[in-house]
Amino acid sequence: MSPVWGHRLEEQPEELSVLYCAGRDVKSLPMADEILITYDIWNTEAHDIMLYKQGILTKEEVKVILSALDQVRKLHEKDQFKLDPQKEDVHMNIESFITEKCDPVIGRKVHTGRSRNDQIVCDMRMYLREKILKITDSLITLVEALLNVAQEHIETVMPGFTHYQHATISTFGHLLTSYAQAMERDLDRMEFVYSITNRCPLGAAAGYGTSWPIDRDLTAKLLGFDEVQENSIDCVSSRWETEAQFASAISFMMNHLSIMSQDFVFLSTSEAGMLKLDDRFVLGSSIMPQKRNPGPLEVTRAKAAIAQGTVQALFGISKASLSGYNRDGQYTKYLIMDIINECELAPVVLKEVVKSLQVNKGEMQRQASLGFLNAVDVADYLTRKFNLPFRQAYHIVAESVKLSDEAGELTLSAVNQAMENAGVNHKVDEEDFGALTIPQKNVSLKSHIGGPAPDAVLKTIKNIGIRLSSHRQTLSEAVKRLERAKIEIESIKKEF
Amino acid sequence: MSPVWGHRLEEQPEELSVLYCAGRDVKSLPMADEILITYDIWNTEAHDIMLYKQGILTKEEVKVILSALDQVRKLHEKDQFKLDPQKEDVHMNIESFITEKCDPVIGRKVHTGRSRNDQIVCDMRMYLREKILKITDSLITLVEALLNVAQEHIETVMPGFTHYQHATISTFGHLLTSYAQAMERDLDRMEFVYSITNRCPLGAAAGYGTSWPIDRDLTAKLLGFDEVQENSIDCVSSRWETEAQFASAISFMMNHLSIMSQDFVFLSTSEAGMLKLDDRFVLGSSIMPQKRNPGPLEVTRAKAAIAQGTVQALFGISKASLSGYNRDGQYTKYLIMDIINECELAPVVLKEVVKSLQVNKGEMQRQASLGFLNAVDVADYLTRKFNLPFRQAYHIVAESVKLSDEAGELTLSAVNQAMENAGVNHKVDEEDFGALTIPQKNVSLKSHIGGPAPDAVLKTIKNIGIRLSSHRQTLSEAVKRLERAKIEIESIKKEF
Amino acid sequence: MSPVWGHRLEEQPEELSVLYCAGRDVKSLPMADEILITYDIWNTEAHDIMLYKQGILTKEEVKVILSALDQVRKLHEKDQFKLDPQKEDVHMNIESFITEKCDPVIGRKVHTGRSRNDQIVCDMRMYLREKILKITDSLITLVEALLNVAQEHIETVMPGFTHYQHATISTFGHLLTSYAQAMERDLDRMEFVYSITNRCPLGAAAGYGTSWPIDRDLTAKLLGFDEVQENSIDCVSSRWETEAQFASAISFMMNHLSIMSQDFVFLSTSEAGMLKLDDRFVLGSSIMPQKRNPGPLEVTRAKAAIAQGTVQALFGISKASLSGYNRDGQYTKYLIMDIINECELAPVVLKEVVKSLQVNKGEMQRQASLGFLNAVDVADYLTRKFNLPFRQAYHIVAESVKLSDEAGELTLSAVNQAMENAGVNHKVDEEDFGALTIPQKNVSLKSHIGGPAPDAVLKTIKNIGIRLSSHRQTLSEAVKRLERAKIEIESIKKEF
Amino acid sequence: MSPVWGHRLEEQPEELSVLYCAGRDVKSLPMADEILITYDIWNTEAHDIMLYKQGILTKEEVKVILSALDQVRKLHEKDQFKLDPQKEDVHMNIESFITEKCDPVIGRKVHTGRSRNDQIVCDMRMYLREKILKITDSLITLVEALLNVAQEHIETVMPGFTHYQHATISTFGHLLTSYAQAMERDLDRMEFVYSITNRCPLGAAAGYGTSWPIDRDLTAKLLGFDEVQENSIDCVSSRWETEAQFASAISFMMNHLSIMSQDFVFLSTSEAGMLKLDDRFVLGSSIMPQKRNPGPLEVTRAKAAIAQGTVQALFGISKASLSGYNRDGQYTKYLIMDIINECELAPVVLKEVVKSLQVNKGEMQRQASLGFLNAVDVADYLTRKFNLPFRQAYHIVAESVKLSDEAGELTLSAVNQAMENAGVNHKVDEEDFGALTIPQKNVSLKSHIGGPAPDAVLKTIKNIGIRLSSHRQTLSEAVKRLERAKIEIESIKKEF
Repeated sequence: MSPVWGHRLEEQPEELSVLYCAGRDVKSLPMADEILITYDIWNTEAHDIMLYKQGILTKEEVKVILSALDQVRKLHEKDQFKLDPQKEDVHMNIESFITEKCDPVIGRKVHTGRSRNDQIVCDMRMYLREKILKITDSLITLVEALLNVAQEHIETVMPGFTHYQHATISTFGHLLTSYAQAMERDLDRMEFVYSITNRCPLGAAAGYGTSWPIDRDLTAKLLGFDEVQENSIDCVSSRWETEAQFASAISFMMNHLSIMSQDFVFLSTSEAGMLKLDDRFVLGSSIMPQKRNPGPLEVTRAKAAIAQGTVQALFGISKASLSGYNRDGQYTKYLIMDIINECELAPVVLKEVVKSLQVNKGEMQRQASLGFLNAVDVADYLTRKFNLPFRQAYHIVAESVKLSDEAGELTLSAVNQAMENAGVNHKVDEEDFGALTIPQKNVSLKSHIGGPAPDAVLKTIKNIGIRLSSHRQTLSEAVKRLERAKIEIESIKKEF
Repeated sequence: MSPVWGHRLEEQPEELSVLYCAGRDVKSLPMADEILITYDIWNTEAHDIMLYKQGILTKEEVKVILSALDQVRKLHEKDQFKLDPQKEDVHMNIESFITEKCDPVIGRKVHTGRSRNDQIVCDMRMYLREKILKITDSLITLVEALLNVAQEHIETVMPGFTHYQHATISTFGHLLTSYAQAMERDLDRMEFVYSITNRCPLGAAAGYGTSWPIDRDLTAKLLGFDEVQENSIDCVSSRWETEAQFASAISFMMNHLSIMSQDFVFLSTSEAGMLKLDDRFVLGSSIMPQKRNPGPLEVTRAKAAIAQGTVQALFGISKASLSGYNRDGQYTKYLIMDIINECELAPVVLKEVVKSLQVNKGEMQRQASLGFLNAVDVADYLTRKFNLPFRQAYHIVAESVKLSDEAGELTLSAVNQAMENAGVNHKVDEEDFGALTIPQKNVSLKSHIGGPAPDAVLKTIKNIGIRLSSHRQTLSEAVKRLERAKIEIESIKKEF
Repeated sequence: MSPVWGHRLEEQPEELSVLYCAGRDVKSLPMADEILITYDIWNTEAHDIMLYKQGILTKEEVKVILSALDQVRKLHEKDQFKLDPQKEDVHMNIESFITEKCDPVIGRKVHTGRSRNDQIVCDMRMYLREKILKITDSLITLVEALLNVAQEHIETVMPGFTHYQHATISTFGHLLTSYAQAMERDLDRMEFVYSITNRCPLGAAAGYGTSWPIDRDLTAKLLGFDEVQENSIDCVSSRWETEAQFASAISFMMNHLSIMSQDFVFLSTSEAGMLKLDDRFVLGSSIMPQKRNPGPLEVTRAKAAIAQGTVQALFGISKASLSGYNRDGQYTKYLIMDIINECELAPVVLKEVVKSLQVNKGEMQRQASLGFLNAVDVADYLTRKFNLPFRQAYHIVAESVKLSDEAGELTLSAVNQAMENAGVNHKVDEEDFGALTIPQKNVSLKSHIGGPAPDAVLKTIKNIGIRLSSHRQTLSEAVKRLERAKIEIESIKKEF
Repeated sequence: MSPVWGHRLEEQPEELSVLYCAGRDVKSLPMADEILITYDIWNTEAHDIMLYKQGILTKEEVKVILSALDQVRKLHEKDQFKLDPQKEDVHMNIESFITEKCDPVIGRKVHTGRSRNDQIVCDMRMYLREKILKITDSLITLVEALLNVAQEHIETVMPGFTHYQHATISTFGHLLTSYAQAMERDLDRMEFVYSITNRCPLGAAAGYGTSWPIDRDLTAKLLGFDEVQENSIDCVSSRWETEAQFASAISFMMNHLSIMSQDFVFLSTSEAGMLKLDDRFVLGSSIMPQKRNPGPLEVTRAKAAIAQGTVQALFGISKASLSGYNRDGQYTKYLIMDIINECELAPVVLKEVVKSLQVNKGEMQRQASLGFLNAVDVADYLTRKFNLPFRQAYHIVAESVKLSDEAGELTLSAVNQAMENAGVNHKVDEEDFGALTIPQKNVSLKSHIGGPAPDAVLKTIKNIGIRLSSHRQTLSEAVKRLERAKIEIESIKKEF
């Protein structure tokens, strides 16, 4: 705990939130290829087992290789497999280990029928698909939390905003449900990215295939891919594409989270006073002890902007490039890794923020009762009651607003005066008018699909919940398929 | 035909290509809302029919409205419905027409239970879904053309490039197939965008629903939407999102097209001489009569960059905005319309470019025979033949390359010398070596899935073709659903 | 005036603001080259006069050309010179006019020693430099307005924000001055862009010069350029660069304006209530008559995002292009014209917004007195008074904040209690403490350079004012140089 | 040396180039604040000396602090001052060191009258200005190299390209000079960025000044700033701006370098064969031993795209933010540091690439003699010789090109035939025509300012050289001012 954290906060900032907000001031970024070690091992195991099945390597050779790779894996698990910068990348590090530590002749056969061009694309796909699944999981959990909290607030009336101005009456549950509905599309996006990502490029070699009789279906299966990405040039030329598609999906998600964040930032200003963030999610100030800075929300906005810059860079790198491998593509690796790094915790942290929000219902109710938020509803009432054209009723209410400006809210007398001025020969009933001024009654009128009436919101929550189960199911199947592939290759390895 | 078009070109530049390349030098852009007139009419028809079914408007009132809208439609078809800038937008223009030309009382009822906030989102969705379908159609047709031309060139050997350098031997059919495979993913993207777009936001009113008892399922059905977008806040807050998703899909497509374009630009330089663009797709110069400027290809690169800037602007507008409608959102309309305008012809024009490409097979063959393109294959041969570790064979070939540098291609004697230097006690067979130097034989060895061997490419072409039929089927169903909705509402209108 | 403008607003929305906010719903965009007609005429006059001075054209020929160009100019002034889309661009339209309407032989000599490549770069520079000067002028006027209004508010205390939270006490004058200071850098940027823009590319021909003995110094002078851009390849290759530099300067300006806008949007929410926009600058709602939507401020945010997308597209178009002219460059024209079109009114409209702001001093004062805004100042006081280390005083105040949480503001007893808890054997004087709770006194303590104390702000205003005069002077000289060039060429024309 | 570097390369890849191209596969990124340690020490020294001069701290206290800071500096120089992640950032790490290792009471006074908000902006400015100067230096050196190599090649004729097509005749010296001229503007940009950067924000505290009687002029002077950035809010709100301005300047520079790189990539393809990169700057392939991959050039293209994404992210973070500090701003630190890190070596490495280029003059000459590159010049000749209108001569040459298509170059008979066809009653002189077909003679005709004639290029080189000296001078003065400031504070420290 740093000495500058303010003392006013009752609880400690949540650890994950601190991590999410910390930035890189006192955090270094590891070698990019460190994260690929596991995937590169699996990649080579599958490739060399296939080489054996195709009669290209002998059983004995592959046995040595698999055993060497197991050594690398165990060292790595103990954090003892250090990548040597003299050896360019993870591929050469692992190949060198086999050559130097196990068998110089066999080690130099590991790379048969493969190029680093297809190897890295394959490693990246394996890394990316796991990250996609992880973020999908976090997003589902966040949407669940939103629906749960929304359900508690289906009757919590508050102003509905447009243009940062009070527009009409809504509920907090309605607002939270809107985030959930938007994030459903993020889940759709993640599933789409996954479908594009989980295709096996291995076997493309440098981009133009190999004269070795390789079996690409087999390696794809051993590596848990859903299918083979056929044309070998495309396997290599599309390196930026999976990355850009994922970055783009992250960007949509971050934009949604940034909108939610800005809502929370605004609603928890001392001016608005409708929300209060939990102590665990505000940061102190080194010089202003009273501050409750909404760190994770601000940081979410910043990361949304960075995600957009990343999308841009990924598109920019590949625009009008020549088909086939170009060195430019290497930089797609760091771009996507960095943005995943920045953003993967976002749904996790914001889920906690949402769950721990302190909702000032009294203030929300007070503000929902202020001013002219019922103006449209009064206009609609006039239209219905006196069969006025809507546009005329609208003008009468506009006039009423002016006439009741001093009162600070729409008054019955103002409405009646405006009616008279407009030549409408009716008076508004006092009781009817009263009902229009009670936010709860008002909101309950908007009970059509997707409206803010409690029942309508409940219905939406239920519908999203059903679709969410289906997303959860899809996720779970994808995870299981990868697990099965891991189990299968382990059992095959035992044959050696 | 402008006087500066060079005389050397045998044929006239294709009209669409001229349009695609022309830019806006002497072309004005129409009012954005002009394109929305048709959609806004349909929108209002459906909304007001629903109001009747819900007992909000009378049959007589709706009859008047429908008739007035028919007048607007007819005028518009004759290009006589001019939008009046004094009336802000398409919505007010049409409403005013009804009020002023038909019935002042009824006209002012048209807007009952609706806001311009949901109306414009709905209009845009109707506009966008048609554009998505249109671009999908063009893309399918382009992919078909690519597959057809690819099939003609499965035996047309040429150098395969990496880093703008000759890397190995490939075929022109293999290259064209790689584009087709990449564009399949663009088709997947278009289908995804469509699924997100074709959801009905109407009924969200200003974002917080309405107290009128509207039937959102009915309007969605009458408007041909696949489903209702439930939560009303989300309907309005997501205005940027459909646009950004489509712009992003366009950006991926344009990037693919820009890569293909750059390939063609390069291969048709006088240096490379492997391709020649058809006269219809090159532009002349006002000062250099011999120029064959690849206008459509260059313009495609530029438009890819612009599409990326559009994605950026759309993300940027919405990042950290407050939930609900903000005026900022209006600009998403022009951004997406402009980029559709710039890019929708791209696949159409490039399809013609592809179909009319003049392929210089002789030069391709010549360049495929040059230099050291068979180096990897020789290394693979040594590995197989003498059971050398791949990495050792690689070093031997590297040495051979140096030894035969003067010859300009890998020589048998150089290889044998390098073998000897490496202490390998074998000689390479002259006949074997000969086979490795014939591009066609060489390429035929790479016959695994997705490789450049003719059979493998044919297989890929067939597989893509099968999936393409399925895309065509999906497209056709979407088109039919929209047509059915149009027919249905016409028949309902007759009831009035 | 459209029928949907709310009736509540006392005054009509300012015309320029309406224009600025209107978007392109019911506005078409003219042909891009229309705006270049004037510049293209001047360009050709200068070029052909030079050709005469160099003995390339005869006096008689140039006389005919100048007279024809005068006809074009006059027609254009009467809006009767319509660009014919069959003639590609402004250059061919004008050349054709001369050929067809004046003299077929002489007309075809107009283009001698020039290419459209250098001609368009030159036209664009002439167009851009005028726009730069115009925006500079608008910006200077805006900064002046900011300084004037700031001066009225050097004693208007208000909360100073960090993280959207009240941080400490400041004044509205201090805030406005901060915008002025930021925009000074925008003025620096505009001057920089101008210096890069006002260099003459004419004479580069297609990019590689011409064999005609042209005098580039003379054309540069006749066209009012400050210097010749020498190397001819660079003249053409840099086409995107001036555009990107200007777009980038616009982007910085728009970002500043968007920050000011967001401040105003927030301070004029019903929650904050510290500012009220003048009726002329709020937009009504078609359905919520009470709305006061801050249209120009929202639109400024959107346009800032679009400007950024434009910068991106301009960079993207030229990245890794081949030296010399590429057709891609044509699109830089529309990008820069569009963004100028969107943004040139921004400083003009926002100046009016600033000048007409209604400042709720009472509310500002009230909020400046609330809560714990004096916390740092109390800590500083403790440090000074009792010679405590700052960090210790900080911790005491943090403790005091907690102890006086219920009171809603820092209390004397809480501070004294916290002192005691910290083992500090002193009591805070009641009078001293009182002074710390009066915002005006508090703010006056911060009187160092750039601080919020009235005197300090006044000093800053004065300093900015001095530098502003210098910017005004620089602008005025640039304008005069252009005017002199115009006069000079007119007088030379009389010699023919 | 990694085992996969190809053996064909005669020389080892230059170390810097390897570093520049390596990416982060096996390289970790250090903590961001590590690089700020030196600046943060200087910052605190200056601030606390000022506090003493203003009577806020005692001489004794400051003595302790300065001594402690010297310890930190010495530890840091020996790489023994490790930042503790528990202490948030560099500021708290250094303050804690003083408190814990030196004097707990005095240590807690270090922060008096300062906030981390102004402290970090100040540290960043100090870091950025050094990087600006460093890149300026590298750029100047690169431009010098370009001019030197250009001078060697003022007579090396080659085709001038437009649209990737041969357009006309130019020289390699002319092309290299065009880069130099473009990069001069990058130098102008760097000077502009420096002028905006080297302003002292210290004293702004959290953004609203401090009640301590600080002397901002003094700290600015002690820290080597050219001036004080007055308004304190602006000091903090502008955090993104300096970063974006520098990133933007880097982006322009990288775009220029990417264009030069693409030229070199293209000219050194086996197809073009006009350039050959030195062995030290090509990368081998793990599978294709003959490859000469232009690594540094490709990487430059990629980094240009990344720089553009960075500009975007920086603009995006700050767009429509609220004035005053927001946590979002923290991310500007990593964005700018990363892009500096990626790009600062670019001009250094490319200078070496340029200096070591192998220019195939024979091939350039051959290609300059091919085809129809003299077409415009022939048209100009016809115009001059026979007093034809240029446009007519143009059409005659266009016809001649068609007539001599088979010959592959413009023939005399074709021209004469075309003349006849056009009804022009003259014959072209054989001798004249011969001269037009010799590239050297041809190019020497284009001797106006900035043209490709050897004398003209020489003149341009000389002019750029003169301005370059002035840039060198400006740089040298800026460097000296910083050095003097360092010396001055050292001598002041001795007074304690």
